[in-house]
Amino acid sequence: MALSAAEVNNLKTAPGVDGIIPAVLNRWSSRSFSSREVSTVDLARVFEAARWSASAYNEQPWRFVVGLRGTEIHQKLVDSLISFNKGWAAAAPVLILAFASTHFTHNGTENPYALYDLGAATATLTIQAAEEGMTTHTMAGFDQKFAREALGIPAEYVLGTIIALGYQGDPEALKEEQIYSLETSPRNRKPMKEMVFSAWDKAAGLSL
Amino acid sequence: MALSAAEVNNLKTAPGVDGIIPAVLNRWSSRSFSSREVSTVDLARVFEAARWSASAYNEQPWRFVVGLRGTEIHQKLVDSLISFNKGWAAAAPVLILAFASTHFTHNGTENPYALYDLGAATATLTIQAAEEGMTTHTMAGFDQKFAREALGIPAEYVLGTIIALGYQGDPEALKEEQIYSLETSPRNRKPMKEMVFSAWDKAAGLSL
Repeated sequence: MALSAAEVNNLKTAPGVDGIIPAVLNRWSSRSFSSREVSTVDLARVFEAARWSASAYNEQPWRFVVGLRGTEIHQKLVDSLISFNKGWAAAAPVLILAFASTHFTHNGTENPYALYDLGAATATLTIQAAEEGMTTHTMAGFDQKFAREALGIPAEYVLGTIIALGYQGDPEALKEEQIYSLETSPRNRKPMKEMVFSAWDKAAGLSL
Repeated sequence: MALSAAEVNNLKTAPGVDGIIPAVLNRWSSRSFSSREVSTVDLARVFEAARWSASAYNEQPWRFVVGLRGTEIHQKLVDSLISFNKGWAAAAPVLILAFASTHFTHNGTENPYALYDLGAATATLTIQAAEEGMTTHTMAGFDQKFAREALGIPAEYVLGTIIALGYQGDPEALKEEQIYSLETSPRNRKPMKEMVFSAWDKAAGLSL
C-alpha cells in the first residue's frame, strides 16, 4: 500500500535530538507537491528569513526570481530543469531561481563568497519553509545556460539552484517507480566522525 | 556608558515577524566573547544540525576542523586571520575552519556546488548555535594559503570560512573603538524588493 504524505514526513524526519531546531530535522527534499497554493505572506516570510543571512562584507549577493504556477516564469524554470526533475517539479506551486551577484558593491572586485553566501541564504529559506509546514527541494539539476537565456540574466550574476516550494502531496501521485522509491526511503548522512575533525584528517570524537 | 551584552543582543535582533524561527532573527555576527567554554555536547549539537543540510547528490562535501582555546589548532587558526579579526577572535573559545571536498565521491568529477553546500551547512550551524544561546561570527577574512599550510590540508579541498563560536561577552572588553562601534550598531539588510523578483530585474512586490 502506498504511503501517505504524513507517513512519508515521519519517515524523513531526522532522529530527534533535544535542543535542535525542529525545522532543521524536519526539512527534507520532497518530490511530491499537493495542489495547495502558497500564500503571499507565507512566501514573503521565507524570504524575510533568508534576508537576515550573514554574508561577506554584508554584501547580500543573493537574488531570487519567483515563478508561481501558471505563470510564464514558472514555465521557463520548468523548461530549464533536467528531465528527471521536470517530471515532478512542474507540479510545485512555486519555483524559485536562486542566483547571486559576483562582484562586491563596495569596491567592484570579485566576490569569491557569492555562491557560499547564496547557499547560506537558501538554506535559511528552506529551514524557514519547513518551520511553516511547507516542503522544498533545492535542485542543482538544471541547464544554467538555458535558464540564463530564458530569463535574460546578465553575465555578472552566477546561477545557483532552482528551489521547488509548496506543500507535500501524497507520494503515490508520483508517476515513476524510481521517484516513488526515493520519496519513501529514509534520509541518510555520513556519521559525524567523517565531518568534524580535531586536526584536518583526525576525527574530533564528537558525538551525541 | 558602555552597553551590556544583553543590551547589545536586544539591539542586534532583527525585527520580529510572527512565524519566523527566532534563532534566525537572533543570530548575528558578534565580536565579543565571554570566557565561558562551550561544552562538548553543545558543540556536537551544532554539528548535528549542520549534518542534516541538503547538498548536491547528497555529497555532504563539508568538513570542519575544530580548535578549542588553548590548543595548537586554535592558535593556528588565530594566526591565519587578518589582523582586524585576530584582535577579537582570539578570545573565542572555539574556532572552526569550514572547508569542503571539491569532487564528487560517486564519480570523481568536480563538484561546482562545494562552496554553495558548505555555505548551507555553516548557515545551519550558526542558526543552531543561536538557538542554543551561543554566538558566532563567520569570517572570510583569513589567509587561505597560511591556513592550508598550517593545517596540512590537501589541494583537493577548498577552504571556506573560519567561524568563531562561544558565548557573548560585554562589548566594553573590545579594545578598539571601531570594533566597539560595529558591535553596538544595528544590523541592516537590503529591502526585500532588492532581492525578490518576478522577472530577473522586476521586484516581485512581496512584503510583510
